Amino acid sequence: MLLTRKKISVIGAGFTGATTAFIAASKELGDVVLVDIPQVEKPTQGKALDMLEAMPVLGTDSKVTGTSDYSDTKDSDIVIITAGIARKPGMSRDDLVQTNQKVMQSVTKEVVKHSPDTTILVLTNPVDAMTYTVYKESGLPKEKVIGQSGVLDTARFCTFVAEELNVSVKDVKGFVLGGHGDDMVPLIRYSSVGGVPLDKLLDDETISGIVERTRKGGAEIVGLLGNGSAYYAPAAALVQMAEAILKDQKRLLPAIALLDGEYGYNDVYLGVPTILGENGIEKIVELDLTDSEKAELQVSKESVEKVMKVLK
Amino acid sequence: MLLTRKKISVIGAGFTGATTAFIAASKELGDVVLVDIPQVEKPTQGKALDMLEAMPVLGTDSKVTGTSDYSDTKDSDIVIITAGIARKPGMSRDDLVQTNQKVMQSVTKEVVKHSPDTTILVLTNPVDAMTYTVYKESGLPKEKVIGQSGVLDTARFCTFVAEELNVSVKDVKGFVLGGHGDDMVPLIRYSSVGGVPLDKLLDDETISGIVERTRKGGAEIVGLLGNGSAYYAPAAALVQMAEAILKDQKRLLPAIALLDGEYGYNDVYLGVPTILGENGIEKIVELDLTDSEKAELQVSKESVEKVMKVLK
Amino acid sequence: MLLTRKKISVIGAGFTGATTAFIAASKELGDVVLVDIPQVEKPTQGKALDMLEAMPVLGTDSKVTGTSDYSDTKDSDIVIITAGIARKPGMSRDDLVQTNQKVMQSVTKEVVKHSPDTTILVLTNPVDAMTYTVYKESGLPKEKVIGQSGVLDTARFCTFVAEELNVSVKDVKGFVLGGHGDDMVPLIRYSSVGGVPLDKLLDDETISGIVERTRKGGAEIVGLLGNGSAYYAPAAALVQMAEAILKDQKRLLPAIALLDGEYGYNDVYLGVPTILGENGIEKIVELDLTDSEKAELQVSKESVEKVMKVLK
Amino acid sequence: MLLTRKKISVIGAGFTGATTAFIAASKELGDVVLVDIPQVEKPTQGKALDMLEAMPVLGTDSKVTGTSDYSDTKDSDIVIITAGIARKPGMSRDDLVQTNQKVMQSVTKEVVKHSPDTTILVLTNPVDAMTYTVYKESGLPKEKVIGQSGVLDTARFCTFVAEELNVSVKDVKGFVLGGHGDDMVPLIRYSSVGGVPLDKLLDDETISGIVERTRKGGAEIVGLLGNGSAYYAPAAALVQMAEAILKDQKRLLPAIALLDGEYGYNDVYLGVPTILGENGIEKIVELDLTDSEKAELQVSKESVEKVMKVLK
Repeated sequence: MLLTRKKISVIGAGFTGATTAFIAASKELGDVVLVDIPQVEKPTQGKALDMLEAMPVLGTDSKVTGTSDYSDTKDSDIVIITAGIARKPGMSRDDLVQTNQKVMQSVTKEVVKHSPDTTILVLTNPVDAMTYTVYKESGLPKEKVIGQSGVLDTARFCTFVAEELNVSVKDVKGFVLGGHGDDMVPLIRYSSVGGVPLDKLLDDETISGIVERTRKGGAEIVGLLGNGSAYYAPAAALVQMAEAILKDQKRLLPAIALLDGEYGYNDVYLGVPTILGENGIEKIVELDLTDSEKAELQVSKESVEKVMKVLK
Repeated sequence: MLLTRKKISVIGAGFTGATTAFIAASKELGDVVLVDIPQVEKPTQGKALDMLEAMPVLGTDSKVTGTSDYSDTKDSDIVIITAGIARKPGMSRDDLVQTNQKVMQSVTKEVVKHSPDTTILVLTNPVDAMTYTVYKESGLPKEKVIGQSGVLDTARFCTFVAEELNVSVKDVKGFVLGGHGDDMVPLIRYSSVGGVPLDKLLDDETISGIVERTRKGGAEIVGLLGNGSAYYAPAAALVQMAEAILKDQKRLLPAIALLDGEYGYNDVYLGVPTILGENGIEKIVELDLTDSEKAELQVSKESVEKVMKVLK
Repeated sequence: MLLTRKKISVIGAGFTGATTAFIAASKELGDVVLVDIPQVEKPTQGKALDMLEAMPVLGTDSKVTGTSDYSDTKDSDIVIITAGIARKPGMSRDDLVQTNQKVMQSVTKEVVKHSPDTTILVLTNPVDAMTYTVYKESGLPKEKVIGQSGVLDTARFCTFVAEELNVSVKDVKGFVLGGHGDDMVPLIRYSSVGGVPLDKLLDDETISGIVERTRKGGAEIVGLLGNGSAYYAPAAALVQMAEAILKDQKRLLPAIALLDGEYGYNDVYLGVPTILGENGIEKIVELDLTDSEKAELQVSKESVEKVMKVLK
Repeated sequence: MLLTRKKISVIGAGFTGATTAFIAASKELGDVVLVDIPQVEKPTQGKALDMLEAMPVLGTDSKVTGTSDYSDTKDSDIVIITAGIARKPGMSRDDLVQTNQKVMQSVTKEVVKHSPDTTILVLTNPVDAMTYTVYKESGLPKEKVIGQSGVLDTARFCTFVAEELNVSVKDVKGFVLGGHGDDMVPLIRYSSVGGVPLDKLLDDETISGIVERTRKGGAEIVGLLGNGSAYYAPAAALVQMAEAILKDQKRLLPAIALLDGEYGYNDVYLGVPTILGENGIEKIVELDLTDSEKAELQVSKESVEKVMKVLK
């Protein structure tokens, strides 16, 4: 059955998931189903109802529902996975990976049972490995299982550039490859303001400072919040990717994609420039890299593989 | 100095304050300053920075900053107060009122020191009494100190009507007078869908059910969340009122206004239809009420006065 | 094949058609095909290309193309017919009706050949008879052939009310039944500002003046322009109806619908309140009318029938 | 007096002026005054009223008025000049220049009489010379008299690139210096898609074709329309520049600015990258040019000076 209204399911009703649902509904991208585990079904319903009651004032008529029953996600056009745990004090990184792997597996099983042809966006960390897990578990083609990291990293980079130059962030264009955070490979020569290359506008030291701040962007927020991590910008990033797919916008956005020979790598999820449209990742854009960029990307790829080894 | 960019300060960086800041910034209404007490200054800065980093993706260039220093709110065009505590188990209502009264007094003192001509919107409960407190403390003209409740109550009412009829919430128009929650006076004969009076579309019993659900709308969310209260819809309501004032829209919206003879009352803040524009409440619209509506409004007014007596 | 991007064809590339295409594209409702006769194919392409070149600046990525070849409209989700001639000096009304009837027939034949399941909106005057003509020619179910008049009349009514009261037009709600222009049946008791009934805010004389001005709204513009008729507001009205259908919004909007017993009439297109969604007119809302409203609606209906008799 | 609502006056109510007014009002940038000569005052009022009547449907509450009386433009925040004639068959270029010079002078005199501190955007061709004329006549500081050409040229360039690559135009960034049309200096190395330099995505021949088509972009539309020139994209470009100024966005956009030593030139209006904010052109961004770019810019500058010599 062809449905006119799009259906967006967001798995995980914590800060990021809830904010993702709220932004998607506010933009009238479609009807939103917010899903979490049965133990928090009532709060999930409460958040969804609260959002729904905001819609008249925002002038949009998206529906928002909260549930712990995956059958409510049936025939989703897109599913956004934000579920999973954050690393707690005393927890080894391997424990984190394996715990979230289990979460991804159980979530994915439920998701594809009810939406066998959907497209899935993954935010859960470590995102490269978690996207791979979802891909394997889902049985979906690789184009339809996509991780988020570059949109967020780029947004942070642009924020800092705009602030430094006191220009509109609308005119700042940044560009990152590779993994999230420390493994990010910023391509400064592909960054510009109103088309003007960044290195014509800022000196090397300032640019290095901005790159460094971007790399540590997630940690900066964690440090300030004291308890918890960023959710506004990650949620906005997820919605931008979802919008590109739901509206078939053919946007050129960085995404974590399964490489199949591109950039010389195979069978690994890595952050690369992609075209996002109704078929998910419709193309991976291959860039000529300088030797130092290649080296950085290699580090990023090895870092992902190190995590992948922890997967069971 | 005439500033082109509007400045919006949001006092209280909890869920509601943060969500208010985020919606206002997303709608590019102006630059937003999120304020909380020194003890949580870092988390407040963290939330603000996270929001700021979402702006590039949302395509807006509002600035968002977090602070505990009121001098950062200097020359605000509008100030939105969401600060205050919620009632805790074992706390008497009088304690709640007096605690929040103190919060309002200290917040207001700081606000007007730095923005002596601003307009203030108040959300903190019990909202009628708290708006009165802010009014007294601020020394601002009554038109410029305004409480929120009717926009939220109406939004909930419209949500339930749209759901019942399966129509777009864009076409549903509700109308409430009086206080928040139990003291709400819904004017059904002023409620319509696409102009069609509600009682032509729904039977009495269904309408009564919707009215009752609206009255208990806040409690419904509290009950579901288990821990905390609604913040998405309240935040959206505050932003709609702020937008009407910042853009001088002359919107006819319900607001908690100081009555000065209107509806036969004096020196009491009560929810009435108002015109909101650049001068705050530019007009209070007086309606002919039926006897039963008058009686309900009287109950609402007495309820406010009961709370007012607790004020020191 | 399920297409993610919506396709909107606008027939007639004159002022109204072009403006309709532009507004639809600006709102990113879908890709727009602007169609006119072969003799003006190049100007039609020119207008479309000019619009397309505006999209980067407007931040939307709708595609706009101009053509005289109906195969380019293949699989349109919605088709908006603005083609036809305006009455020229010395032309009898019957000649106008019969000329536009022929235009409707030839346009409709082409439209349904390439989009056999589409929904059609008709603007061409006399709109009730022209919508009937399109309905008959198309073979489409009655729900999918819809005329525009009430959205425009209501918009004019709201404009005048907002101006009179100096309030935001966002809060004004008007309501009209029946035919366009002189045959319009305004339901004042269903008109309100922020929910407050109009007759509480304006005296009878002022309201009568506004009703009269609304009835003559088209003529007022014609008189001012000197040469030509309104196109901005008619185009905006068409786009609002198209949006309700394309996004399945279930909006309660006035539309010219084929009556099948509703309001006591049969086999006649007349302006009535409807629910517009993905299936076109999903419901006709029947209102209790006063005797004088019934009489006015009867006049409106007879007026339509008089025109219908001229159809061949 | 500090007015909350912005006031935008558009001089010239032809296709471009009217479309500019409509887009500005639709985006709720402020209240719009559409001005033309007394001989067409009624049609100007008709267009404005028609636009105003579209606002309720578009959900915005901008006011739009038409007039031939410049006192109605009093205290405009921005004035956009689209008035002037197009070259007619048999008319020498010098006649065109001198005719439009007179139009600029008389319009400017009236504009600054009523808005002595406003900012003026000029579209009338030949735009460099006409902007200079307005600058001289107005007595305004150079930062506040600005010509449009690069935003439009860039929009066309981006349109063609997006079409060629089948990517979202949202991700295409172009860049032009110098004059309009044939004198345009496209900086390909500053053009990118999603940050990826254009020459990584398209071969030289394709890029040259796009540059050539952009240079002839105005002529392409003129050729298709047969009678008249582009107005949708020029209007959208003017509104983008106006928005940057009215909202103090500090956008980096190409604009025709009076050079005062920048790029080695003096006392000539030329298309260069600028920062647009509440003070008009807040900065001219100077780029390192290659020798061939310098040569092209020199040609562009000489071309402007040739026209300037015709000015009386």
